[in-house]
Order: sequence, then structure tokens, then C-alpha cells
Amino acid sequence: MTSSDIVWQYSSITRAQREQLNNHRSAVVWFTGLSGSGKSSVARAVEARLFQQACRSFVLDGDNVRHGLCSDLGFAPAERSENIRRAAEAARLFSEAGMIVLAAFISPFRADRERARALLPAGDFLEVYCRCSVAACEERDVKGLYRRARAGEIADFTGISSPYEEPTRAELVLDTCSIGVEEAARRVLDLLREHGVIAARHWPL
Amino acid sequence: MTSSDIVWQYSSITRAQREQLNNHRSAVVWFTGLSGSGKSSVARAVEARLFQQACRSFVLDGDNVRHGLCSDLGFAPAERSENIRRAAEAARLFSEAGMIVLAAFISPFRADRERARALLPAGDFLEVYCRCSVAACEERDVKGLYRRARAGEIADFTGISSPYEEPTRAELVLDTCSIGVEEAARRVLDLLREHGVIAARHWPL
Repeated sequence: MTSSDIVWQYSSITRAQREQLNNHRSAVVWFTGLSGSGKSSVARAVEARLFQQACRSFVLDGDNVRHGLCSDLGFAPAERSENIRRAAEAARLFSEAGMIVLAAFISPFRADRERARALLPAGDFLEVYCRCSVAACEERDVKGLYRRARAGEIADFTGISSPYEEPTRAELVLDTCSIGVEEAARRVLDLLREHGVIAARHWPL
Repeated sequence: MTSSDIVWQYSSITRAQREQLNNHRSAVVWFTGLSGSGKSSVARAVEARLFQQACRSFVLDGDNVRHGLCSDLGFAPAERSENIRRAAEAARLFSEAGMIVLAAFISPFRADRERARALLPAGDFLEVYCRCSVAACEERDVKGLYRRARAGEIADFTGISSPYEEPTRAELVLDTCSIGVEEAARRVLDLLREHGVIAARHWPL
């Protein structure tokens, strides 16, 4: 062996080292639910609260994934699966980078969510079901998508013309029809505490 | 408007806020060059030095992208382009999350690299060309890939059976045939200082 063999050695920072620097564990919180059920709103509320405590987190959702990483994909079942596969792989990279990932995707198929879970070490994937009826989401219809789906302008719309498979073993169920975003965010933070992602002292409230 | 309209409002943390928390800017350093030219080695050496100074950085390279985010892709020209497109989109997400991204990809096609550059605000994409001759990379052949390419066991191998288009406006050229990884990493850190990504005081050495 010569000195140049050493010079070109592979070196890297481990996830554990990053977690130590950040003063919290990394994890993936996976929000699933119908369009309009509040996934992104809750995720962003959690993000804001984590940031206040100097925790590193990042929201991955349709807004920043569908227009970039998955801009080549549509909404047919196979494309939805591939969308979720890539989102889950991106979430894994962010968690390796030491961050608390807040992934908010309709992710209607149980098999896709289970595949996402399987990418991560046990206990690092926390599924949060934003449970809200189609009727309630449709009545709210913040983005006007349900109206367009009913009018036949959007094909493969979850809850209308494409199925949603409810979680059977979510770590947390939020009834987002009846609770507000503040309360929902508080429960997610409790979940992060329970799983040792953030320390109890982060949240004396 | 009712209180529930407010409750479900969209809120988020800006990149600038994250940069302030991290005490450095985010950016994408894009290492390009032949297989075996030292891209990942230099990237990891930079990552280690940034970590020592509590800077948040992350290496994106073939090791963590080809086996995950792009596991469905091969090495034909169109697949290489799609691989780089997704890597660049992932890099953009990490930079939005406030991190210094160290992206190490052969990325042989100029158009793909320019597309990656165009994803980011001006000044946030720093192209680093790891310049090393095919002969030198082949002689080193750390992974035994050149031998297999010459034997016809690997198709579309950059420098052998697939072209490499040299950068024409890289922010930095590293002659990785002749300089060691320590020196290369030092020059990348200088580049980050020059572009105001990290503060001068981070690097009094």
C-alpha cells in the first residue's frame, strides 16, 4: 500500500453523527389520506414547530415532488406507485441526511405505503392517517378538484374514480374532519416524542 | 372567512430561514468526470470537513441514487439523462432544505448538466470538473470496471464505448490525476468560500 492508496480512501459521515449534531433523531412521518384531508397543512404546521426548536425537518409533498422529481408521471395506478416509490426513496435520503421528513402524499395503495415503510429501519417510518370522509373533503374542496373530478375533467381521482385503501396499522390516526391543524400538529409532535425522535425537553408546552 | 379558514392555512419555512439556522448558505456542488476520476472521494472529503464545522451537507452519488431513486434506470443515453434529471431534482430539494449538496455523477452529457444548473438560482450551482484522462482512470481502475468494459462485459461505458463531453464553463477544474484528495477538497472549500456559501471564518486553516 502506498500513501496514494490512503489519500483516495472513501470517507463519510454517518446518520448517527448527523443526529448527534442536530440533537434529534431522523425519521420519516408519512401522512396519507384523501385529497383535501389536511396532510400538507398538518405537515407544514409540524415543520414550523420543529423549526422553532431548531430541529431539521423538511416537507416532501405533491407540490415539490410532482413538479420536479416525478414530473414525468401521471395518475394511473402504475404511475401513482412509481410516484410513491420515488417519494419514499427521497424520504430515505433525507432521513440518512439526519432530517425529520414530513412526507404528505395521498398514497392510496396500501402496498405502496408498506414498500415505503420497508425502506427504513423499524421504528423510523411513522404512518399518520389523515382520516376524513370523501363527503367532508368534497364539501371543503379547497382546490376545486372534487368539482372537476365529478364533472369528469380529472380521471383516476382518489375517492371518486380511484380507490383509497385505508391504513390498517398507522402509528397515528388524525380525524382531520373534526380537529384543527393545531391539535393535529400537537399529536404528531407527541408521536415524535413517544418514538424518541425529539426529546421531551423540546416540548415543555 | 371563519376561524377554520385560518386554521387550515398553508405555512412553511423558507430556505433563507433554514440558512440562517444552519449559519451557512445552501448550494449544489456538482462533480462531473469519468468513472474513477475521484468525484465521490473528493465529495466525501469535502463532506467530512464541512461536518467538522457543523455545516449541513450531503453527498448524492451513484451509490445512494442508482440503487434507490433511479433503480429502474439503466445506462443507455436516455436513461443516463433521466438519471441526471432526477439527481438534479433531488439536489434541488436538498438545497431548499438548507443543505450543501455534494452531487457526484459521471453526468457525461453537457445538456444534462446545463439542465441541472438551470434548476437552481444563479450562483447556487457550482460545477466541478474532476479532470483525469481515460488512460489514468483505466490504469487505476479501482472498481475493475474499465477491465470489464474493455472485455465487452459492460456496454455504454463512458470513455470507452460512450462519450464524455467536457465542461466548458465549470466553476472549478480539479486535475485529479495529479493532485491528492486533500488538496482537491481544499480547493472545493475555497470555492464555497468565494461564492459565500460558507463564511471565511469557517476555514482559518
